[in-house]
Formats: sequence, structure tokens, C-alpha cells
Amino acid sequence: MTIQTALTALEPVLGDRLTRSKSDLDLHGRSESHFATTPPDAVAYPESVEEVAELVKRCATHDCPIIPWGTGTSLEGHALAVRGGICVDFSRMNKVLAVHPEDMDVVVQPGVTREDLNTELRATGLFFPVDPGANASLGGMAATRASGTTAVRYGTMADNVMGLQVVTAQGEIIRTGTRARKSSAGYDLTKLIVGSEGTLGLITELTLKLQGQPEAVSAAVCAFETVDAAVNTVMQTIQMGLPMARIELVDAATARAFNSYAGATMPEMPHLMVEFHGTPAAVAEQSEMFGAIADEMGGKGFDWATKAEDRTALWKMRHNAYYAILASRPGARALVTDLCVPISMLAEAINETVADIEASFLTGPIVGHVGDGNFHSALLIEDGNARDLEEALRLSDRMVDRALRMGGTVTGEHGVGMGKMKYMEREHGGGWDVMGQIKRAMDPQNILNPGKLVRGN
Amino acid sequence: MTIQTALTALEPVLGDRLTRSKSDLDLHGRSESHFATTPPDAVAYPESVEEVAELVKRCATHDCPIIPWGTGTSLEGHALAVRGGICVDFSRMNKVLAVHPEDMDVVVQPGVTREDLNTELRATGLFFPVDPGANASLGGMAATRASGTTAVRYGTMADNVMGLQVVTAQGEIIRTGTRARKSSAGYDLTKLIVGSEGTLGLITELTLKLQGQPEAVSAAVCAFETVDAAVNTVMQTIQMGLPMARIELVDAATARAFNSYAGATMPEMPHLMVEFHGTPAAVAEQSEMFGAIADEMGGKGFDWATKAEDRTALWKMRHNAYYAILASRPGARALVTDLCVPISMLAEAINETVADIEASFLTGPIVGHVGDGNFHSALLIEDGNARDLEEALRLSDRMVDRALRMGGTVTGEHGVGMGKMKYMEREHGGGWDVMGQIKRAMDPQNILNPGKLVRGN
Repeated sequence: MTIQTALTALEPVLGDRLTRSKSDLDLHGRSESHFATTPPDAVAYPESVEEVAELVKRCATHDCPIIPWGTGTSLEGHALAVRGGICVDFSRMNKVLAVHPEDMDVVVQPGVTREDLNTELRATGLFFPVDPGANASLGGMAATRASGTTAVRYGTMADNVMGLQVVTAQGEIIRTGTRARKSSAGYDLTKLIVGSEGTLGLITELTLKLQGQPEAVSAAVCAFETVDAAVNTVMQTIQMGLPMARIELVDAATARAFNSYAGATMPEMPHLMVEFHGTPAAVAEQSEMFGAIADEMGGKGFDWATKAEDRTALWKMRHNAYYAILASRPGARALVTDLCVPISMLAEAINETVADIEASFLTGPIVGHVGDGNFHSALLIEDGNARDLEEALRLSDRMVDRALRMGGTVTGEHGVGMGKMKYMEREHGGGWDVMGQIKRAMDPQNILNPGKLVRGN
Repeated sequence: MTIQTALTALEPVLGDRLTRSKSDLDLHGRSESHFATTPPDAVAYPESVEEVAELVKRCATHDCPIIPWGTGTSLEGHALAVRGGICVDFSRMNKVLAVHPEDMDVVVQPGVTREDLNTELRATGLFFPVDPGANASLGGMAATRASGTTAVRYGTMADNVMGLQVVTAQGEIIRTGTRARKSSAGYDLTKLIVGSEGTLGLITELTLKLQGQPEAVSAAVCAFETVDAAVNTVMQTIQMGLPMARIELVDAATARAFNSYAGATMPEMPHLMVEFHGTPAAVAEQSEMFGAIADEMGGKGFDWATKAEDRTALWKMRHNAYYAILASRPGARALVTDLCVPISMLAEAINETVADIEASFLTGPIVGHVGDGNFHSALLIEDGNARDLEEALRLSDRMVDRALRMGGTVTGEHGVGMGKMKYMEREHGGGWDVMGQIKRAMDPQNILNPGKLVRGN
């Protein structure tokens, strides 16, 4: 009933931009991975920070849950309305507000997607490097501390968000950070909000660092006899300090999925997909050094993509790996793991994971941002099949213990959402309680994305 | 009286490592800048995290303030015992616990100084890059989010701390972060504690990123007719994307101070001090490109220091700039400003600051980590002279408004401590209240470094 009264209170603020249409509710209740559809009670499309602040104030008055929403590409059910409430869709707050080429930063609204931003920036000679694959919204990417293929060179969202405008659980509008390159002026609220998954505040504006478009770019695909050989190539490359722009692993099963889904003609073997950014001389030197390492590890069939359209095709294929893998078992959904370990443990972590999956009745192709020590297995499960899900969870559980034993984390980039809640105590111990203290201090009514990230919320 | 009972309760834990000797109290009550000596009631020298945890628990029982202490090199009175209490000196927790060369990280206790760490690392081919000048403790550097000369290339402490062990205000031992290169597992407690200045927890262990020692290093000093010409050189260099390892400004007054304090023979003009790290070819290319920009701006008298001992002498002189400047007015103390602005605003910010100081009866030599848009003026004041202090505060106040108007921050690297409290509301608005919410949630008794950073604590 409180949600009903909240909806009534919101109508004068949002008019027909507050909707309860079935298609809207379904769209915003869907999960990209294996979670059951969990629609909100309504979807709001605010157009300004003032509307967001008013929405939050009225929801707070009526104890109504608020779930922020970008493009819905999360894999951990971050935006599922597990307590009902109002989904705040930021797609109408999608303006690039200011580009400062001389300072290499940009101010955007949260609904701008990373591809739209880079299209807008093209003429400036600058680009925004964080690339999670999906064409996610920048607000969502910040909220989940996203990273992806280029983090090995340019860092994650934590490294690339300079400042935020945030609406607090009290409906106050605050600003965090500045346009200066560094600051030691108190607690770093920017980095607290980045990765807080909508549980501490709603992001209504972002100031982002930009990078100069590299003068030269070169990319390549290279096959290896074993995952081990590929991973050892990665470890040596990173330990040599080669400034890779991208270094991605796909296993044989993923190569097979590319062949049938994307019409690729890759040998069904593990591959590395790499990219170099820099001056023409630097790119040439780095390519050669990488080639020598790969060669020593038995890498073969180097396929260099020096033309822009070939590189675009290459990374498009990589970005669609998840869909290619899903298509390899018709009707399947996936539980996607997201371990990240110290680079020295990477080969062991992947080998043990492969052995676990081979001993299971499930399949789970592996891809990874291996330069960061981060890899995923997409464990394919039949929709609604409890035995499949149980087995996927058993495998995931073993992987989690392995990552923690190796000094790593249970989630390198996908975030906590619904799926990783059960691992938080194992990873953080008493630190998870501290997160709860912060949550209760900043959102004592627990209206912001309840049921996510912290214990008992 | 509560402090007395806390001391009695601590004696069995620490024995003679809990001291009230006058020399100890004075040492730990001193400020490196203009703040009056404010000694604690006692100084504790714990030797393990368990001792720290027990100390905090017993202090909590008796509501006794706790002030963590590294080497006392802060410029903002961070460790002054404004409410009395116990200063926790970490100098006996000074072990390097583990070096992981293959992962390029290291685990240290908080009392290890940056110079000691780099001495210990020398044979590994790795180094820890953050360089605030002073030979500070790594715990103190993390607590204040320090940076310094190399942040333009390697980042600040925020970028180089991967994980922490922390004793909370409740005396619980928690761990934040992991040894993986990235994580999205919940709120980033590491980055919340870094820069929290001892108000949220005591840092008892740090995991730090390391860098490969550069194959080639080259440094140079170069004079300019005007500060403007020097700063424009910096702006062009940064905007061209030259990966400077260091790019430091000293003004004519500082050059004069170097000449008389350090026996230098610099023309009394503004100078840039720069350093390049990389392969021999890259360093040569970068030096040449920088030289061309400087030349265009009228830079002259390039003095290249290619030998290691010459570079050591150069940076030692730079690191002692503060003492050289203090010596230029015998008996003086300093109020040191710490603005950081977007790079495009740097020339304007410095020019207006210089004009302000020239119109004042005080002197205030300027040095800066200008590649980050960060610069300091050491406003020299006679110890105990109220008129001098008032004028320094007036100048500082104008500078603060200027930095904020330009989209910058009131403190790039020195932190809040005592000196910047009065500017926090101006910089953060409602964000400062959010910091207070976090403080009260994590330290409801307000025993951790009370009187610092947040409102009314």
C-alpha cells in the first residue's frame, strides 16, 4: 500500500513519464543472466536532477523502494525489484553536458551510453576508454564499477570517474569530486558511490576522464595449443611491463561458438585477442615483443588486424561472446562467474576451473580480461532446470573459494547484485558489516535498491 | 579523568611502550607548519595488530581519543591531540611483510617509510613510486592520500594502495581489498580509508602496487623568464600527452632559497624540473619533444642530469624546498596552501595567486606539482605574530575561492587536518554532511582522531 500511495504522490511530478504498462514493467524486470523476471511496480523516466530529487523525497515519505536503471545489461540482477517499488530509468537524461578537450574530461548525464559518448567525442581526438562490451549507460557503469577489455591499460570506472552529482536517500542533491586531477579533501565519496550499485544514492551526472585517441592501433588474434600456453603468454607479457591496450583470452569452446554464431573461421583452440595503442613506432615495437613471447609459447596463426574495420569486427565478435555462447545451447541461460586473481595465480586458477567444468555435466566456455587476472565462465543451464542451476552454483562456489584462497576477489567487474551476495561475507568478513554501517547511515529507511549488496537490507 | 583511566587500562597491554615522557609528548605534539604544539596525554608504541586492537577496545571503553602517528611530516596538523588522548606511533610496526615481484605488489606494516621500502626493493627491479618529498611512513601517506612529484605519471596513494588491514573504532580487525588488480565486490572500503586521516580506522597493514624500475631515466632543470611561460610549457606538455614522470615548478623566490640553502647556482628565475622514465629510445624522444616545447616558450639553460647522483642531488634539493623556503626568513613558520585546479586553469590560478602575494606584505614562494595542476605557496609568517597569520589566512581564503571557482579543490595532497576544516563546507556542500554520516556510523563514540575532517566531531 505504501507503494500505491507513493505512486499517487509521484503522478503530479512525472505525469505520463510514470508508467505501469506491462511492456515497461517486463522490460525493467528482466535479467540478462539466469535470474527470474522480477518487475517493479512502476517505471519513472525523469528528465532532470530536480525531478529525481523530488521523486526520492516522495518515495522516502512513503517508504517506497527505488531501483535505478541504465540499460539493463547487468549480469547479476542489480536492477531486479525484489521488494517492488519504482524503477528509475535514466534513458531521458542522456545529454553530454560539456566537453573540456584542454583538460581531457567530459560531463555527462547518466543515461548517455559509452558508444554514444565516443561517437560524440570522435572529432575531438579524445575517447572514453572503459569498455565492458555491452553498450551500457555511463551511470550504470559507474554504479557497478564496470571495466572490461581495456582496463589493463586505462583502468576501471573507479579510475575514470572524477566526480559525480548524486541524489541521496534524503532527496538532497550533492556533488562529489572536482575537475582537478587529484584531491585529498576528505573522504573520497566519488569512489564510495562508484560500485555502490544504487544502494547509497542515484547518480545524476558524471565527470569522466578522457584519453587521447592513439596515433596508431594494431590488433591480432593468435591460437595456442592449450589454455595454459595462452595464459603463460599473458603472464609474461604483463610481467615484462608491455603496455597492452587489450589482452583477452577465449577458450576452444568460445572459438567454436564464434564460428557458428559470428561466422568466424577460427581453429577450435584457445586464442588470445590483443590490441596495442601508441605511436606507430611504439605499436610496432610492442607488437614485435608480444609476438616473440607468443612464439616461444607455441602461439600460431597470428592474424593482424591493422585496418579499422577489421578491428571493429574483431572486437564486435568478442563483445558478443556472451550471446554466441548462449546460442551454443539453444534455450539456455547462463550463470556467469567473474573471478579475478593475482596474475601469478592465473594459470592455476583457470586450469583448476577448466578441470572442474570438465568433470561436470554442464558446459561453461571461458573468456577473460586476462591482463587483469580476470576471467569468466558462462555456465550454461536450461531455463527452469533446478539440477542444472544447483550444479552451476556448486561450480561457482568452488571457484569462489579458489579465488579467495589465491588472494583474489569473487567479482572482478560484474558487481554484487543478487548473485554475489552470498559470497560477500566470505570475501570481506567484518568489512561487510562496515558496508552495512555505511548503508544504514546514508539510507536509514533502506529505500535505495533494497535487497542488494549489504547484509539483511 | 577518562583518559587517566584509559591509560591505567592500557599499561598491562603495552608496558613501557606506553610513555608519558616529556620529550615523547612534545615530539608527537609538534606541527611541521604553523600550528601550536598540542601534545597528547601519552604515546603508545604497539608492535602488532593485536595490540592495536586491544588498545582501541580499551580506549573505547573509556572514551579516550586515539590519534595515529607515522612520522609527523603532515603540514595540516593531522596528528595534533586537540582533545588530548593517546597518540599511536607506528614506528615499531615497520616490517616489509611480503614482496611479490611476479605480481608487482608488496605487503608492508604502516611504519615502513617510503625510502626504507625502496631500499628494500632495490634488488627486485621494482619500486614504489609515490613521492611526497618527506620520508613519510606508508601508513601516514595512505591516511592522508599523499601524492607528490610523481603523481603525474604513477598516481596518488589512492591509485597505489590495493588493500588494507584496518582496526575499526570498535577494535575489530578487518581487511579491505585483495591482491587482485580490480574488484567490484561492494563498497570500496580501501579507497574510503585512504584519505580518512585516522578518523575511520587505524591502518595496520598495506598492500601496495609496485612499478618496474625504468630502464632509462633522465632529468633536467630549465629556466623561464616568467612563471607564465613555465606554466604554459607544462600545459602544452600535458595536453600533448607526454608521459612525464615528474614536472615541477619552482618560482624565482624558491630558486633564490635553493641558492642560499642548498648551495645551488640557479638564476633567480622560475624553473621547471622534469624527469623522464622509459626505454632509452622513449626517454630520448620524450626529452626532445619536451625540449622543443620549452624552447618555444623561451626556456633556457637546460641542465640535463643523466647521472644517478646528479638526479639524486636535484630531487633532494626539490624535496627540501620547504626547509629552504623556511630558512629564507629566519625564525619563520609557514602556512602552506595546496590548490589543485584543472590544467587549463593553471596559468590563471598561479598568476592571480602571485599577484595577490605581491600585493601583500608577506612573502610566499611557490612550488608545484604542476603536471597535476597542483601548486603550493609557503606563506612565511613570524611565529606568534597574529597580524602575519591573519594576512596568511586572508590570502589562503582568496586562493581557496579561486580554486573552487575554477573547478578545483582546496587541497590536492596535504589533506584536511586542522587547517582545511574551514573550507570543507565550501568545497563539498552537502557532501560534507554525508562524510559526517559515515564518520558517526563507523565511529559513533568519536574516539578516532576527533576534531578533524568532519563537522562538529
